[in-house]
Amino acid sequence: MFSPLIDELVRALRILPGVGPKTAQRMAFYLLEHEREGGERLAQSLLRSIENVTRCQCCRNLTENPLCPICMNARRDKSLVCVVESPADVVAVEQSASFSGRYFVLHGRLSPIDGYGPMEIGLDILEAQLQSGEIAEIIIATNPSVEGEATAHYIAEKARKSQIKVSRIAHGVPIGGELEFIDGGTLAHALKSRTLI
Amino acid sequence: MFSPLIDELVRALRILPGVGPKTAQRMAFYLLEHEREGGERLAQSLLRSIENVTRCQCCRNLTENPLCPICMNARRDKSLVCVVESPADVVAVEQSASFSGRYFVLHGRLSPIDGYGPMEIGLDILEAQLQSGEIAEIIIATNPSVEGEATAHYIAEKARKSQIKVSRIAHGVPIGGELEFIDGGTLAHALKSRTLI
Repeated sequence: MFSPLIDELVRALRILPGVGPKTAQRMAFYLLEHEREGGERLAQSLLRSIENVTRCQCCRNLTENPLCPICMNARRDKSLVCVVESPADVVAVEQSASFSGRYFVLHGRLSPIDGYGPMEIGLDILEAQLQSGEIAEIIIATNPSVEGEATAHYIAEKARKSQIKVSRIAHGVPIGGELEFIDGGTLAHALKSRTLI
Repeated sequence: MFSPLIDELVRALRILPGVGPKTAQRMAFYLLEHEREGGERLAQSLLRSIENVTRCQCCRNLTENPLCPICMNARRDKSLVCVVESPADVVAVEQSASFSGRYFVLHGRLSPIDGYGPMEIGLDILEAQLQSGEIAEIIIATNPSVEGEATAHYIAEKARKSQIKVSRIAHGVPIGGELEFIDGGTLAHALKSRTLI
């Protein structure tokens, strides 16, 4: 029904997360009818990013430079490291504006079944950093899933061996959340992890 | 917070319809982390389409060839023309599998306030086709908006001058729709356009 090039474009757009056939078709027509300039800018930007963006040598976050802006920032506390699963998690923590250390991005979580061992998520690099003596505390902010918890335990073990303070971010009822709508697992955890007031 | 190239990519992705800052960030990270090959394919496909896709010389639909696949198809009835507002409308009518003629794509509707006069939506080309004597009937399938109706009237006038049969697609309660949930305007139209049984 489409011309071959448009058909190819619709199929290519479907690799974007959350984009099904209908949305892809809408995007293709929109770009070709109203936004050729923006479309070209997008294509060029995509090619440039894919060619140049690699991982920060220090924290493994995505960047086109040897070091990412956060690791380069002299005002960040280099002795405090927050371990997260993905670059999106870095953005989330940064937006909370309540952390002034640096990050370590795993790009995954320990999950041998999916082929993610310690090396795949950069734990060898993290271990070397732990042994270098420059880190005073690590905060583990992996997701509270089974794999995320396993990853947290594994990292905590390594950190303790290097006599480094390890902490895990708190899990419980979100601020502004209502008890009525919180799932049982979260509530059970919130009760167990209660703090004295 | 992002590296400059990633920041640029996130901004470039926002030109896609329905993509806000959060979705754009998710798409950028997804492409860079998991789909570099697909991302490159997308960029190349986008550049190729933008460079080569123009309008069919006969029906003004988007295509990279002088004539679109539908106008080239010898099995389509060239004497029956369906006038639609956009390439997406062609796809919708084609998917109904109940039309065997060809199309004429306006790429808009008459709307002088937005700078869409008869020439902008190709009515000069359509008029030439009406006068050529090759068209026996045109079906006007512009949207049932104020501008869509005005466009339909304008085209119908021209077609009648050339002694060509003109029809408008029916508007009313959608098949499978429930009266309870249909808006008053549609119901009023459905009552007015009732057919004898």
